[in-house]
Amino acid sequence: MSRKVSESTVRRLSLYLRILEEMASPGGTVSSEDLAERTGTTAAQVRKDLSLFGSFGKRGLGYSVEELSGRLRAILGLDRTWNVAMVGAGRIGSALFEYSGFWKRGFHIVAVLDADPAKVGRRWGPITIQDASRLEEVIGGAGVDILILAVPAREVHAIVDRAVAAGVRAILNFAPAQLKVPEDVALKHVNMVMELEALSFTLSQDRKER
Amino acid sequence: MSRKVSESTVRRLSLYLRILEEMASPGGTVSSEDLAERTGTTAAQVRKDLSLFGSFGKRGLGYSVEELSGRLRAILGLDRTWNVAMVGAGRIGSALFEYSGFWKRGFHIVAVLDADPAKVGRRWGPITIQDASRLEEVIGGAGVDILILAVPAREVHAIVDRAVAAGVRAILNFAPAQLKVPEDVALKHVNMVMELEALSFTLSQDRKER
Repeated sequence: MSRKVSESTVRRLSLYLRILEEMASPGGTVSSEDLAERTGTTAAQVRKDLSLFGSFGKRGLGYSVEELSGRLRAILGLDRTWNVAMVGAGRIGSALFEYSGFWKRGFHIVAVLDADPAKVGRRWGPITIQDASRLEEVIGGAGVDILILAVPAREVHAIVDRAVAAGVRAILNFAPAQLKVPEDVALKHVNMVMELEALSFTLSQDRKER
Repeated sequence: MSRKVSESTVRRLSLYLRILEEMASPGGTVSSEDLAERTGTTAAQVRKDLSLFGSFGKRGLGYSVEELSGRLRAILGLDRTWNVAMVGAGRIGSALFEYSGFWKRGFHIVAVLDADPAKVGRRWGPITIQDASRLEEVIGGAGVDILILAVPAREVHAIVDRAVAAGVRAILNFAPAQLKVPEDVALKHVNMVMELEALSFTLSQDRKER
C-alpha cells in the first residue's frame, strides 16, 4: 500500500490528525469541509485521502473526532512506540533529545552515539552516549526502527552506508547532504539552515530584479 | 531570475557551499567531479547548476575553492546579514534562538514575540520578548526580512495573514500546518515530527504488506 500513497497525502493525514487532536470536543463530529478549511485543502481532497484507507464517517453526519483520530493514528503507525537511535551528540542532537514532541508521539530515543571520545560515556538522562563504532551492534541489537543522523555532512555518508548494511529501514537526516539509500530504506531530511538559505536566495534575487 | 531556478538547484548550491567550506585547503581547487561525488549528484549537474549564474572555473583546472565559495555565498544571499523576527517563545523557539548555526550564516534574530503574557517582557540574551499584538509594528519598523513561526498550528493561520498584510516577504514555518500565502511571499516549512510520522507510516505499511 505504501507505494500508492503519495508523500503529500501522508503529510495531509498528519495535519488532519493534529486538527482533530486540537479540537475542543473529542466526543463530537467534524465534517470534511471543517478539516479541509483548517488544513488549507478541499473537502473533496479530504474525502479522497481518507477513502484510501477504507470507509470513514456517515454521509451527512461527518466523522467522529475520536474514531477518526484513532484510525489516523493507526494508519500513521502512531498507535505504538518506535525505537530511535541517534548518531551525533552535538547541539542539534542534544536539542532533539530534549524535545518532548518526539516522546509524546511515541518516538523513543533508546540509544545515542558519537565519534568524539570526550562525549562517549556521558549520561543524557537515562541514556549513556556510546562510541559511534558500535553503530552496527546498536542497530542489530536494540531493535532500532529509525535512525536519526545529527552529524556533520562530511561524516554522514559513511555512517549511512554502515547503517544500511546493518539493516536500518528508516532514516531522518539533519546533516546538510544528499544521501543515497536503497529503495527499501525510507529517508527524510530536515535542515533548518538550508531552508533559510533558500529564503535568502529568493530575497536576494528579488532585490536584484528591482 | 528566481523564477527560473528550481528549488532543487538552490538546495544543491547550498550543499556545494558546505562542501567547499569543509575542504581542508581553501587556497586550492576543486573539480566538478569532486563536488558531484560529495553531494550525490553528477559532474554535468554541477556544471549546469553553476552555469546558471555565469562562468566559473577554468577548463581542466577546476574551480578555485575560495572564489567559488565567495560566488556561492553571494548567489545565496549569504554575503550579508538578514533580520529575522520569531513568533513563538516556546520550546522550539527557544532551541532555535540558541542555535548558533543561524547566526553564523548571517541570520540575526532581532525580535521575538509571544501571545502569552507570562512570557512577554522576559529577556533572552539581548532580546526582550514582545507581545504578539505588536507583530505589525515589528515587521514594519525593524526592517524584518524573514519571519520564523514557532507557534501552535491553531494560531499560525491568523499570524500569517497579519504578517503578510504587514508586508513580510519570507516565512520559515515550524507549525504543523499548510499555509496559504501570496505568490510573492517565499514560504518554507520545517517539521521534524511530521517527517518522523512519514517514516512511521512507511514502516507500518511495510509490516502490513508482509
